[in-house]
Amino acid sequence: MPALQVIGVDVGGTSIRAARFVGHSHIPVAKTKVPTQAAKGADAVLQRLEAAIRQVAGHELDNVAGIGIAAAGPLNPHTGIVLNAPNLPGWQNLPLKQLMEDRLHRPVFIGNDANLAALGEWKFGAARGHQDVLYLTISTGIGGGVITSGRLLVGANGLGAEVGHMMAVPEGALCGCGQRGHLEAMASGTAIAAAARSRLQAGNEPTSKLWQLSGGDVGHVTGAMVGEAALAGDDFAVGLIAEAGGFIGRTLASLLHAFNSSIVVCGGGVSLLGDVILNPIRASVREHVMSEAYWRDCPIVLAELGDDAGLVGAGALVMESMPAEVAGAVPAAFQTAA
Amino acid sequence: MPALQVIGVDVGGTSIRAARFVGHSHIPVAKTKVPTQAAKGADAVLQRLEAAIRQVAGHELDNVAGIGIAAAGPLNPHTGIVLNAPNLPGWQNLPLKQLMEDRLHRPVFIGNDANLAALGEWKFGAARGHQDVLYLTISTGIGGGVITSGRLLVGANGLGAEVGHMMAVPEGALCGCGQRGHLEAMASGTAIAAAARSRLQAGNEPTSKLWQLSGGDVGHVTGAMVGEAALAGDDFAVGLIAEAGGFIGRTLASLLHAFNSSIVVCGGGVSLLGDVILNPIRASVREHVMSEAYWRDCPIVLAELGDDAGLVGAGALVMESMPAEVAGAVPAAFQTAA
Repeated sequence: MPALQVIGVDVGGTSIRAARFVGHSHIPVAKTKVPTQAAKGADAVLQRLEAAIRQVAGHELDNVAGIGIAAAGPLNPHTGIVLNAPNLPGWQNLPLKQLMEDRLHRPVFIGNDANLAALGEWKFGAARGHQDVLYLTISTGIGGGVITSGRLLVGANGLGAEVGHMMAVPEGALCGCGQRGHLEAMASGTAIAAAARSRLQAGNEPTSKLWQLSGGDVGHVTGAMVGEAALAGDDFAVGLIAEAGGFIGRTLASLLHAFNSSIVVCGGGVSLLGDVILNPIRASVREHVMSEAYWRDCPIVLAELGDDAGLVGAGALVMESMPAEVAGAVPAAFQTAA
Repeated sequence: MPALQVIGVDVGGTSIRAARFVGHSHIPVAKTKVPTQAAKGADAVLQRLEAAIRQVAGHELDNVAGIGIAAAGPLNPHTGIVLNAPNLPGWQNLPLKQLMEDRLHRPVFIGNDANLAALGEWKFGAARGHQDVLYLTISTGIGGGVITSGRLLVGANGLGAEVGHMMAVPEGALCGCGQRGHLEAMASGTAIAAAARSRLQAGNEPTSKLWQLSGGDVGHVTGAMVGEAALAGDDFAVGLIAEAGGFIGRTLASLLHAFNSSIVVCGGGVSLLGDVILNPIRASVREHVMSEAYWRDCPIVLAELGDDAGLVGAGALVMESMPAEVAGAVPAAFQTAA
């Protein structure tokens, strides 16, 4: 029997990335990255999406078991409809699965990009071998994904695992979703940068390296600058990161009470600060869980797949979504645990 | 083939209840309730547990497919060990599954009582036909259970779905678990009664019916008295219930972002207040979710099985836990959806 082939795609506001995987490896045999050109509208993006998939498929499209597509924003994996992709103009109630199946004549499966990054880290990254996984991506926003008992949690309409929208501070900072005090509003890279700017502008931190890093224009301090200053040991920046880590840890404590995961994986740009952010998260989790049973056997670790997590997870989604008789014929590493 | 038989047991601090179910019905063919006599120690309770099971089994014990046992407190359904049952002295690290299998020579499965109440409401109660269920029991404490994609969520060590220990108010009231501000500490019957007593004693509510209901001894106002006053239209009591409902709704919003359930079922003593508590919960959920997609198709309803939920769920647990070849032969109503 020929080795099973799948295609994974990650559609972002800036780039479309596609890869073809063969057998049990998450190292693609073909890979491409093209500009999304989102401003040209939905049809043009779908055209480019099709071209990227055909490019990595080569002559093998008919031998591909299925195509997994990771997209940002709320979408329903059961119906295959993208409700609203914030970075893709015209993507409202877009029947992405059907449209791509009509173009490619292969089975298509779609998933939220953060959910699929969780799937990627579970199947091929930091959470291999676990059955209960909590994945957080800490970046300009905070997203995530959850594996419970060896299955990706999606929820009734595919809108679950929105861990960035857990309430962290009642009536706290305004969140992008319109509510207040969500974890994303208190601890994302965007939130960290906003806190830095407002405290620097208030004149409270005259000795911070951020004055120098921003060329004195502290109204334009970015999350990346705060991270750079923190890695250089700047007390103010380290304190801001620790504060965000504290919010994340306290919210993780609630999430662990809900999911009782056996590993927490942190990805996204802010996680690249390593222990500067992970240690405050770990300390806050330990301080806030109701029993040490929730953290003792639950390491909090860095993601391993970097920017490829969503792409690899999109490939793995195909296997998760195939009928048992097909999935049963595929390499074990792609399969859901029993 | 003879109809499948299972036994469900609910072990509480006061009573042991057991029932035998035949075929696809949750109406028991035999049922008993005996005092737990917890103070006599673990061995004596196990003896009474065995006797209760043998009583409902009658001559059918050898024909029983399995026995499900619901117990309070943290326990590990994977290993069958009760870590610590707060109302049962001597139940620390008790290998309940193994001990009962040794006594009865039938397969035994154990589960947290609130988790199994969720299972009961899903299979035979208010959540029939749903695949994503959030169940809350609002009583002296707040517990719960979660069904995701047609499976009971238990977590890596069986400690998941502790919805009463989601953080509701940072640094809020002290919780029984030792942390602060958990939902249970802010909105359980115990929390409602404590709030009533402290405000009445401060002299702020001289016209409340609770003065009369407590015979003037407002230091002994109970949750039941607050409920009675609220049902009689007492403004102060209605306000206290609404406040608790507000905390519950705000926390439910976070839980819906995590689980994207298609129904929320509320059980436990406080839920018997009906719309007096459910309406504030519904309003608060609507106010706090990030998108109406989370509540529009997600009714918030009363539980249907009352005190029997755990007992019925314990019976259903047997089916959930049986190997597929056995479960495949059982009536559809007992089976997990695909």
